[in-house]
Amino acid sequence: MTAPKPLRGVIAPTLTPFNDDLSIAEDLYIAHARRCLADGCVGLAPFGTTSEAQSVGIEERMEMLEALTAAGIAASKLIPGTGLTSLPDTIRLTRHAVEQGCAGVLVLPPFYYKDVPDDGLYDYFRRLIDGVGDGRLRIYLYHIPQVAGVGLPVALVRRLHADFPGTVVGIKDSSGDWENTAALLAIEGLVVYPGSELPLMAALELGAMGSISATANINAAGIGEVIRLFDAGDKAAAAARHEAVKKFRLTVQGYAPIPAQKRLLALASGEARWANTRPPLLPMSVAEGQALADRLAGEFGFRLAA
Amino acid sequence: MTAPKPLRGVIAPTLTPFNDDLSIAEDLYIAHARRCLADGCVGLAPFGTTSEAQSVGIEERMEMLEALTAAGIAASKLIPGTGLTSLPDTIRLTRHAVEQGCAGVLVLPPFYYKDVPDDGLYDYFRRLIDGVGDGRLRIYLYHIPQVAGVGLPVALVRRLHADFPGTVVGIKDSSGDWENTAALLAIEGLVVYPGSELPLMAALELGAMGSISATANINAAGIGEVIRLFDAGDKAAAAARHEAVKKFRLTVQGYAPIPAQKRLLALASGEARWANTRPPLLPMSVAEGQALADRLAGEFGFRLAA
Repeated sequence: MTAPKPLRGVIAPTLTPFNDDLSIAEDLYIAHARRCLADGCVGLAPFGTTSEAQSVGIEERMEMLEALTAAGIAASKLIPGTGLTSLPDTIRLTRHAVEQGCAGVLVLPPFYYKDVPDDGLYDYFRRLIDGVGDGRLRIYLYHIPQVAGVGLPVALVRRLHADFPGTVVGIKDSSGDWENTAALLAIEGLVVYPGSELPLMAALELGAMGSISATANINAAGIGEVIRLFDAGDKAAAAARHEAVKKFRLTVQGYAPIPAQKRLLALASGEARWANTRPPLLPMSVAEGQALADRLAGEFGFRLAA
Repeated sequence: MTAPKPLRGVIAPTLTPFNDDLSIAEDLYIAHARRCLADGCVGLAPFGTTSEAQSVGIEERMEMLEALTAAGIAASKLIPGTGLTSLPDTIRLTRHAVEQGCAGVLVLPPFYYKDVPDDGLYDYFRRLIDGVGDGRLRIYLYHIPQVAGVGLPVALVRRLHADFPGTVVGIKDSSGDWENTAALLAIEGLVVYPGSELPLMAALELGAMGSISATANINAAGIGEVIRLFDAGDKAAAAARHEAVKKFRLTVQGYAPIPAQKRLLALASGEARWANTRPPLLPMSVAEGQALADRLAGEFGFRLAA
């Protein structure tokens, strides 16, 4: 069996919309996934940080993954987040994703205990791989220390990739630390997706596979265009497009990005449910969202079609 | 219905022993619970931080709680940890504990997203109470910001206790910040358990109900004695006993406390499984454990009976 080719381009960690009773709004969920793909995403990473994944129950996550494939979205385009704090529940969620035929899974380190030994994190992933026990498993490590409180040091990533070369295939680096991203890009054969489009050009130059970025929920077209121009060899055009994409990102980043993007989608679609968040996150107000939408329109000519 | 009286004394967040395949060692689990109660614990808090709770699956936690009551340990002595990062799974685990008749539940704030608004945390607990929908629910908030990465500010605790007075009844304060503990003790009617025996005498003077402490797994007799002497009005003896208890705690605290206590139990019982931990934690070596045991014996005349 040859390994599937990694997804080249921009991947959205899709937002999770909620009904007013805070159950998952499956209709909006499926429609949004389709929209992200139509806008230029080469894949989706449901249940990343931007998806409020850790606010969603295990059963709900499995149901929504099945809903995506039932709606005709190819599992080969899906890299769902499956990392929880415990091995049994992470194995369960990961095995389910593998059985659905997903392209891969995005796995956080166990994130409750802090300052844990690297050997302990290594052992966690080793046992996860053993526990899932399926040759189709493709793990993308998820490094986001500023949120998770537990990171994956480069040396540990190198070791996991070396010891499980067909299984630990890549990493999403959301640290925002370019030195870290560059060090990961130097690991032979490792697929690296920066967790933001800010360093996209430099990362592409060093061999990054694309980007898994929060703002791909609303700006997949822009980010995807940078990668397409780069791949077409038009680096000047790619760099120019990248400058605009970066400014857009920095503007959105100035707000709480999950509530902000949800409110923008609510305003653009007229579907008020889009603004709902689960606690501990709070929705962005209509007024603040409108001001952000006006700013994005004024500065970038950006209008969200929804 | 009158509210049950809170448990007065020392409560152990019981260690979770694992077999060599890292499944839960139910035989050791039950025996240890009985031992803690025999040693002077007035109650148990299964699945706290010391229990490696976040490394244990949801189903496992429910099975072990049922195993405790099936073994004849009264649910009225149990305050299990039920706090996860998502509302649906936390509601499920909490409802199960309430249905088992537990004295209360120990609930972390949702701990994945950081720097979240107090109103978002408030909304989480409000929806948890609504979602469980059972008048028997008694919540002990769990404040351990240095591990969870998300704390419960005093003003938020006061508000939750004021708005849900019969339900949000208390707090375990494991911050190690005496100013914080003292501020909590000033909240009228709130049951406060410091998460360590270090400030025990001062806390008892201000009305603390006891202590829920990691080291109650091996030193319940010592900690419990401080409280009994205090309650008997012999403050001088209580204070003297407290000095020894504090030194013991500080010694154990100098090691990774979960692996250290597990290794001590393995050495004392001759049951090697006791030393097992789940990743990301690693077991303490036999040599290091023996050195610690020797030190505790030499400095405190401490011998673990197991």
